[in-house]
Amino acid sequence: MKQVERIGVSLDKELLSMFDGLIAKQGYQSRSEAIRDLVRQQLSSEQLSNPKIKAVAAVLLVYDHHATKLMEKITSLQHSHILQTISSIHIHLDEHDCLEVIVLRGCVGEIKKTAENIISLKGVKLGRINLVATETA
Amino acid sequence: MKQVERIGVSLDKELLSMFDGLIAKQGYQSRSEAIRDLVRQQLSSEQLSNPKIKAVAAVLLVYDHHATKLMEKITSLQHSHILQTISSIHIHLDEHDCLEVIVLRGCVGEIKKTAENIISLKGVKLGRINLVATETA
Amino acid sequence: MKQVERIGVSLDKELLSMFDGLIAKQGYQSRSEAIRDLVRQQLSSEQLSNPKIKAVAAVLLVYDHHATKLMEKITSLQHSHILQTISSIHIHLDEHDCLEVIVLRGCVGEIKKTAENIISLKGVKLGRINLVATETA
Amino acid sequence: MKQVERIGVSLDKELLSMFDGLIAKQGYQSRSEAIRDLVRQQLSSEQLSNPKIKAVAAVLLVYDHHATKLMEKITSLQHSHILQTISSIHIHLDEHDCLEVIVLRGCVGEIKKTAENIISLKGVKLGRINLVATETA
Repeated sequence: MKQVERIGVSLDKELLSMFDGLIAKQGYQSRSEAIRDLVRQQLSSEQLSNPKIKAVAAVLLVYDHHATKLMEKITSLQHSHILQTISSIHIHLDEHDCLEVIVLRGCVGEIKKTAENIISLKGVKLGRINLVATETA
Repeated sequence: MKQVERIGVSLDKELLSMFDGLIAKQGYQSRSEAIRDLVRQQLSSEQLSNPKIKAVAAVLLVYDHHATKLMEKITSLQHSHILQTISSIHIHLDEHDCLEVIVLRGCVGEIKKTAENIISLKGVKLGRINLVATETA
Repeated sequence: MKQVERIGVSLDKELLSMFDGLIAKQGYQSRSEAIRDLVRQQLSSEQLSNPKIKAVAAVLLVYDHHATKLMEKITSLQHSHILQTISSIHIHLDEHDCLEVIVLRGCVGEIKKTAENIISLKGVKLGRINLVATETA
Repeated sequence: MKQVERIGVSLDKELLSMFDGLIAKQGYQSRSEAIRDLVRQQLSSEQLSNPKIKAVAAVLLVYDHHATKLMEKITSLQHSHILQTISSIHIHLDEHDCLEVIVLRGCVGEIKKTAENIISLKGVKLGRINLVATETA
């Protein structure tokens, strides 16, 4: 069971009422939940600045599936590295383009290198890397 | 067949040599490919500032699968909106936490609203929204 | 005198101890102060998505002061708009390049337009726009 | 005199026409100028990931000038580090708040540390750090 602590936070009435308005719009049921999310985001972006931290990543690619041997190259890049490809989804966007989401596990630095190698392939039109740290620094 | 045009770009020798160094490190085979990627990124971020543009999104969630009824809530939010959930991947991170990637299709504004509603649920610890425009403004 | 409210926030012990570590490194004297800063950042980025909000901006430019008539063009763009230029700093970087920080007041949408017009001038090498909302939506 | 090289870039007609539309809106006079700006941004964000690179920074602060001894603390932090404070602008926002832009010179890592120390002071409500690399890696 996780242990929970309760802390007190002082805020100007005006700031608090603006925050209440924002989180209601976003759908939060409680201030605690909204503040926990802010804290986690802050920690996560800090952790990911360390290239050695273990992480899971979702790499999004938009690519032209007619591009010569692109699918083989993408697949082989995933296998030639010290990364573990967990899973991927492939979605048909239009007659030319596919969206592929590849979920990888490994160190932040290695994930970025592999993702850059994939994104730089001819035929890959857009790429984004999303990292989630799975250990703490 | 797509029509291709060739344009000329003037750059300082020093700037060009630094750019060549960077794209070699990233794995690009040609300057054209690297510059096309910069152009597409720029256009994409511009298009996504319009809430009415049609897009595909990958929403990443890290959540505690023990949280009460969270999985039902996430599923029902995907169905209660005017969005089309195309696909999702679910990955086991540790004894508490899952990573889920949900691929949605719809307007940028609606996708963001649904994603915020999901991310604000109790038990969802981290969320990221990735959008790819599928039409031009 | 500003009225202050005190709210309670529940956090996992582990999350709290990681947060304590991060904010100590950043130099915060109290959790309240660190959480207030997270709340203000969140509100600020939300407010700035509205082009009609009044804001103050600092526009950073790196430019080559040898570029033909660039300084006159930058100055005249600041005057030709509905914006109020409050102040600017000019710093010598090397024999070619200057850094200029221009502080502007106006609506978010107008500030962005003017800044884009300045950044797109021939001779301007880098530009960044920083906005701070001065009213609440 | 800087040496200029001319390179050829191939783009789909559709991509090029969308790019032309965007850069016309932003005010660019030529494609070369717009592409040079994309290249410089990309290089700049790459360089700034190295904490040892020399840079110039503009640190923006919004703070309450009634906060006890805040102005002395901000000034003394600027002096207690290995950084060179080049200049600063101070702007009155309303009866409580000031905007201050501090221009610093130093290594990326040191600038970030000092800026975090300033932003974490009680009374500082918002802070942003903008870095421009002044040497190449």
